[in-house]
Amino acid sequence: MSSPENVVPLTPGAVFLTEIHEQPSALRALLEHERSYARVADTARKRGATTIRMVGHGSSDNAASYGVYAFGLLPRWTALRDSITLTAYYHAGLDMTGSTVIALSQSGRTPDVIDYLTRARAAGAFTIALTNDVSSDLAAAAEAVLPLAAGPERSVAASKTYLNQIAALGLLAASAAGEGRRFAAGIRATADLLEDAIPSLEEQVREVALSFASVGRMFVVGRGIEFATAREIALKLLETCRVAAEPLTATALAHGPVAALDPLFPVWTVASDDETLPAVVEAAERVRAAGATLVASGDAAETLSGAAYTLAVPKPPAPLLSPLLSVVPGQLFASALARARGLDPDHPVGLSKVTLAR
Amino acid sequence: MSSPENVVPLTPGAVFLTEIHEQPSALRALLEHERSYARVADTARKRGATTIRMVGHGSSDNAASYGVYAFGLLPRWTALRDSITLTAYYHAGLDMTGSTVIALSQSGRTPDVIDYLTRARAAGAFTIALTNDVSSDLAAAAEAVLPLAAGPERSVAASKTYLNQIAALGLLAASAAGEGRRFAAGIRATADLLEDAIPSLEEQVREVALSFASVGRMFVVGRGIEFATAREIALKLLETCRVAAEPLTATALAHGPVAALDPLFPVWTVASDDETLPAVVEAAERVRAAGATLVASGDAAETLSGAAYTLAVPKPPAPLLSPLLSVVPGQLFASALARARGLDPDHPVGLSKVTLAR
Repeated sequence: MSSPENVVPLTPGAVFLTEIHEQPSALRALLEHERSYARVADTARKRGATTIRMVGHGSSDNAASYGVYAFGLLPRWTALRDSITLTAYYHAGLDMTGSTVIALSQSGRTPDVIDYLTRARAAGAFTIALTNDVSSDLAAAAEAVLPLAAGPERSVAASKTYLNQIAALGLLAASAAGEGRRFAAGIRATADLLEDAIPSLEEQVREVALSFASVGRMFVVGRGIEFATAREIALKLLETCRVAAEPLTATALAHGPVAALDPLFPVWTVASDDETLPAVVEAAERVRAAGATLVASGDAAETLSGAAYTLAVPKPPAPLLSPLLSVVPGQLFASALARARGLDPDHPVGLSKVTLAR
Repeated sequence: MSSPENVVPLTPGAVFLTEIHEQPSALRALLEHERSYARVADTARKRGATTIRMVGHGSSDNAASYGVYAFGLLPRWTALRDSITLTAYYHAGLDMTGSTVIALSQSGRTPDVIDYLTRARAAGAFTIALTNDVSSDLAAAAEAVLPLAAGPERSVAASKTYLNQIAALGLLAASAAGEGRRFAAGIRATADLLEDAIPSLEEQVREVALSFASVGRMFVVGRGIEFATAREIALKLLETCRVAAEPLTATALAHGPVAALDPLFPVWTVASDDETLPAVVEAAERVRAAGATLVASGDAAETLSGAAYTLAVPKPPAPLLSPLLSVVPGQLFASALARARGLDPDHPVGLSKVTLAR
């Protein structure tokens, strides 16, 4: 694989695409830190800090949506995407003993995430920085640091840091449930499945991208553990392709947004083989009834009938691992669609890699 | 004021508009139940059920976004929009002792909300049904019932039930903090301010609606207690006007979506006078730098410079009451825009008043 430095000047979007391809090895690099994850999970358990408060922006916040399910299903702990504003702007002063804070920031430099973590620590929380930069300000402010280990990410649009964030949250949750070793083996097997699947997916998304070249808006539907996937795919489409893409749960679609659908408003669905599949199948039927174009993805993509395009991914060893695979067709589609529209996903207008915005 | 039955056949959207006008009296009707709210808050406190889990879909879920701040700022309790899926589909079996569940459903008939509440009650939570129909299945399943008291809502697009939901959550939170009486007086004063403001707002939105008649997508930006407002305005635009409107926090805008902006992609901002205002001002500057059309609303709308349209609302007696006012320009705008586009907001295609979707 060429290094990003060599590729950038040649093709717009080459860095984003290279980093999508690097994801299987980024996942394997994370597993080298398995013992750190076990140790930190042990501390949280011993301190009784079993309410998990996750904070982050953009892709990091999307990954936190997955964390709600990983902690709920594995150690059966309540996990929430906490409001940064409540603590860092309004200074609400909640009692945070009994809480573990997981601050997600690729760079470790997001100002209000650092501010939140500092205040949460003072309020009694056990604080963890989950970051690519273990010498960052965020890492310095936290009691414990977990390396994201995704390697340097050069594209403004995140890919491998998102994948490693969900793997990291899953590994931490599994470790808290005493199942860290098994989960780590599952990540390793999933990385292999992903490596095998990428070339054919990259081929398949090309046709979808060409036919969607002039689309201005989309919905991305996922439910349960795949809602994080829907959010992340929608964000990639917004930032790299300038498509007004909105993530929705299967049920939320029926509570209003379905009224906006028409044949020029495609819907991307993430269908994975778990207890939420019937709801996603039902949502897909609503989409077709509205005359909208349906894209079916996920490891149960074949279950959705009437899809204009089907982008299936392999079935992982356990359902909780499926988001590591199901986001990738969306990343590859965003990459292909950006090129079809003449945009450069490595340098979206108005964005920079580290966002210092309030 | 004509009754909806008389108006419906004459003008599409007349029911939605009538119900927007009914909001001040709906708020006053809620206050007749002040003592029930005090009693239920007292029970939650005595049971030590101070983790608040709110569930609902569509507008109800938007109102829950407000609840996070009301409970965080008043009794300083942790409140979250809980995952229905985790409990009702995945049967995660979290321990819910120490939790109060607030199930929000206008009709009291939303199937997975009833299922969630039933399981949460079995898992030890104190369960409250907040509904317009105190004889509904949801009310029967809950330990405590709080009347929403908005009166029958006939338009598919919710307005007065949303406003009463946020008032109800605020009142319950204030009661838990021993400030119920003062908050109730604040709601009453705000209802009067709203009644006075509606006619002129209705006039002002007309011009905005005409110039936005062909817009296909929008962002709606709000932060903190006004994020609920942004979500609700975006949902109204989606369901009544078929605009792909996405709600974003001020910071989330900078983390990706800002890249999608252009002169044909307007941004509606909700600016209220609290600690989050500098972040909203900064977001508005980004919007203008991207060349997008800016609509400034909220009680601090005048603070945003360079807005193409300004829709200011009065300042309420306390910042936590501002969402009762700031959503109304958005409701009126959706109503006017639907008519400008020849759509009937009372009967959006593909929606029914009670959604039984999974």
